[in-house]
Amino acid sequence: MPERNRPAPTDRRYAYDGIDRVIHEHARLSVLTSLVSHPKGLSFGALKQMCALTDGNLSRHLQVLESARLVTISKESDGRKPLTVCCLTAGGRKRYFEYLAVLEQVIVDAAGAAKSARAKGLRHA
Amino acid sequence: MPERNRPAPTDRRYAYDGIDRVIHEHARLSVLTSLVSHPKGLSFGALKQMCALTDGNLSRHLQVLESARLVTISKESDGRKPLTVCCLTAGGRKRYFEYLAVLEQVIVDAAGAAKSARAKGLRHA
Repeated sequence: MPERNRPAPTDRRYAYDGIDRVIHEHARLSVLTSLVSHPKGLSFGALKQMCALTDGNLSRHLQVLESARLVTISKESDGRKPLTVCCLTAGGRKRYFEYLAVLEQVIVDAAGAAKSARAKGLRHA
Repeated sequence: MPERNRPAPTDRRYAYDGIDRVIHEHARLSVLTSLVSHPKGLSFGALKQMCALTDGNLSRHLQVLESARLVTISKESDGRKPLTVCCLTAGGRKRYFEYLAVLEQVIVDAAGAAKSARAKGLRHA
């Protein structure tokens, strides 16, 4: 039997169980990375622009993040009109960085593969 | 108007347009990282175990990856029975590493935020 057919019985090294489905979704990853970079919070309008999302999409994803207690959404005023302000929660920050550690593992695994392929002269490595 | 409400007009720095929807899905990211690490290919059984997927889930995601020309699926024999073997294509390898560069940017952005937060004494930074 070729080597490729014989993983160790407990070898699930690429399962990446720590990839948090709530955080991993593209738009939500954008929103959370924006918010982790702005500890004082961001307005709905700023988030929408920085993440290049439509009003509807951003609203939908913020609801998911709020339900999961990763963000808080509050109404404030800038003196002229009401303002929706989004902030990362302490728990959200913790979960985000736990998720990020798994992404780093993916990159480490792939970098190891690229290094090995370069050594063998493969393209795109 | 508070600082958080005034992004530059063209500021879409967290859009991460290069996140490839086909690759980003958790199971497919697992499969592709397995395959990039095994240039000679992996059997269906090995992939299933390494990615901790069910037969049905792995089949479904392999179909998506094959349709997108990221992997090839072929039937071979180990001398006793037919064997399904999956390999990353050259184009798949290129797209995977392009996607990975975007993940690295997410990590760089978040690491910058963490560093800044540590300097300000925030928890979980």
